[in-house]
Amino acid sequence: MSVVLAVDIGGTKLAAALVEPDGRVVVQDRAPTPNAPGVDGEELWQALEALLGKLVADAGGPPLAGVGVGCGGPMTWPAAEVSPLNIPAWRGFPLRERLRDRYPGLPVRIHNDAICVAIGEHWLGAGRGHGNVLGMVVSTGVGGGLILGGRLVNGASGNAGHIGHIIVDPGGPPCECGGRGCLEAVARGPGLVAWAREQGWRPGSRDATGVELAADARGADPVAGAAMRRAGRAIGIAIASATHLCDLEVVAIGGGLSQAGPLLFDPLADAFRTHARMEFARRVRIVPAELGQTAGLVGAAALVYAQDRYWSAG
Amino acid sequence: MSVVLAVDIGGTKLAAALVEPDGRVVVQDRAPTPNAPGVDGEELWQALEALLGKLVADAGGPPLAGVGVGCGGPMTWPAAEVSPLNIPAWRGFPLRERLRDRYPGLPVRIHNDAICVAIGEHWLGAGRGHGNVLGMVVSTGVGGGLILGGRLVNGASGNAGHIGHIIVDPGGPPCECGGRGCLEAVARGPGLVAWAREQGWRPGSRDATGVELAADARGADPVAGAAMRRAGRAIGIAIASATHLCDLEVVAIGGGLSQAGPLLFDPLADAFRTHARMEFARRVRIVPAELGQTAGLVGAAALVYAQDRYWSAG
Repeated sequence: MSVVLAVDIGGTKLAAALVEPDGRVVVQDRAPTPNAPGVDGEELWQALEALLGKLVADAGGPPLAGVGVGCGGPMTWPAAEVSPLNIPAWRGFPLRERLRDRYPGLPVRIHNDAICVAIGEHWLGAGRGHGNVLGMVVSTGVGGGLILGGRLVNGASGNAGHIGHIIVDPGGPPCECGGRGCLEAVARGPGLVAWAREQGWRPGSRDATGVELAADARGADPVAGAAMRRAGRAIGIAIASATHLCDLEVVAIGGGLSQAGPLLFDPLADAFRTHARMEFARRVRIVPAELGQTAGLVGAAALVYAQDRYWSAG
Repeated sequence: MSVVLAVDIGGTKLAAALVEPDGRVVVQDRAPTPNAPGVDGEELWQALEALLGKLVADAGGPPLAGVGVGCGGPMTWPAAEVSPLNIPAWRGFPLRERLRDRYPGLPVRIHNDAICVAIGEHWLGAGRGHGNVLGMVVSTGVGGGLILGGRLVNGASGNAGHIGHIIVDPGGPPCECGGRGCLEAVARGPGLVAWAREQGWRPGSRDATGVELAADARGADPVAGAAMRRAGRAIGIAIASATHLCDLEVVAIGGGLSQAGPLLFDPLADAFRTHARMEFARRVRIVPAELGQTAGLVGAAALVYAQDRYWSAG
């Protein structure tokens, strides 16, 4: 049986897996992303190539059905010249072309990493069996992917799904996108951490992240709890807007911050209920993502296995 | 050559037309909607039936390819038991079933009136030739329809396209939907008129509408101008959110308020530029709708003529 080589490329780690047609991850491996200042794009490519080569070789060189990749944005799509925000060594790096050269004759399909998470959750996770699903990742950034009528929505340039840039507070904080009051500006981990520090939160580590903030919130730290409420409200407002526009059935939320559980989801649901009153909108189910760390890899595999739903490009 | 019988049902008027396969409106007619207190649903149905019967008879009884209808929401979809907000006589009225009985053997397809306007603009108006289009109607309410990947998005229950309920100001005015800070709460004609009156606007007529407000703004009335800026900003924010989520190419804006021209579109563009900074979002074109009053009828006809794009239901 052939397998798909699935890849997830982020600023801190490179992950890869062999995935069977039913979505089962047979083997996986990972390596730190060579991302120190001065690292060049070829060095990063070689690290990726080594990771993939070793994974396939260790598995006995099974026949491959294709290569599916989730990578941080932005990128051109579907050509996938990638310029991940948090990987400065790659700017316009021709990732799809390189992978096609490395794996000749195989389909190579690349999409935004948050979109791959959403695809994974739709294919086999919290959104399974529903036609209209928003998958979200609330982490260092806030990303997502949109499935409508049972198919991935790409939009004009592959950029649909940017739920992190729904405006939740027009006079709110500036966003890294250059705008103001985006969901991401309010609810991204580093933004929340900065806000909590200003309010007097004293984390255990100097490089505390949203995951630590979520843990402190579970431990009843009042400022950390307030930060979760702040994030939850913003997410609830954004989901209300998205639901009104797209008539969703399920919203699946993953990423480090979602580990705060009810401390995040309760204020989120409150804000959603305040703003989403029409009957069709109230029916949406807002749930934690189910696939955890492998969602992105599973979704990347689905770009190959379930192309009718998730891959409309050439 | 057969024609489609296209119908547009609103709170003040019933409109109908015969539309050719290329979208040309051959003949049209209209009648006031019997909508006085105490009118019952059957009386309204008879008025509609009379209008349609006369239109077809006067045209010499051409063969019909089908019946397409835009009707005020909400409704069940695709069954089209309609309960238009501004037509109290119809609550759960089985419009599709009645039209099927009246025109046996013909396809009868009914959708939200704002969605029909968006379809019209996509089929033959400002969105023609583009795959990813939002059509908006800014009038007594704020409605819309969403075309992505070249096809109408229906969502879970036919309610996709509710751009009027994107939240533009979470602490803003209450909305008729029960929520708060929706675009519609800020930018609908009656809301703007009320706001302008509070600010000292003195309209020429007691029952002044958004159209009169737009006219006064063109006439350099300062409060009317401020009302247009208020609406424009809110619309610009909502479009920024929609563009980020759906990666749109064209947003076409129709309805009475859009007649204010640059007095509305300039502050709209300013707000959009403030909030939509990413390259893919900046590329969207925000333009006035092109088809005017007939957009809804043309779009209703397209439910029959271009079912591959606009009608995914049975």
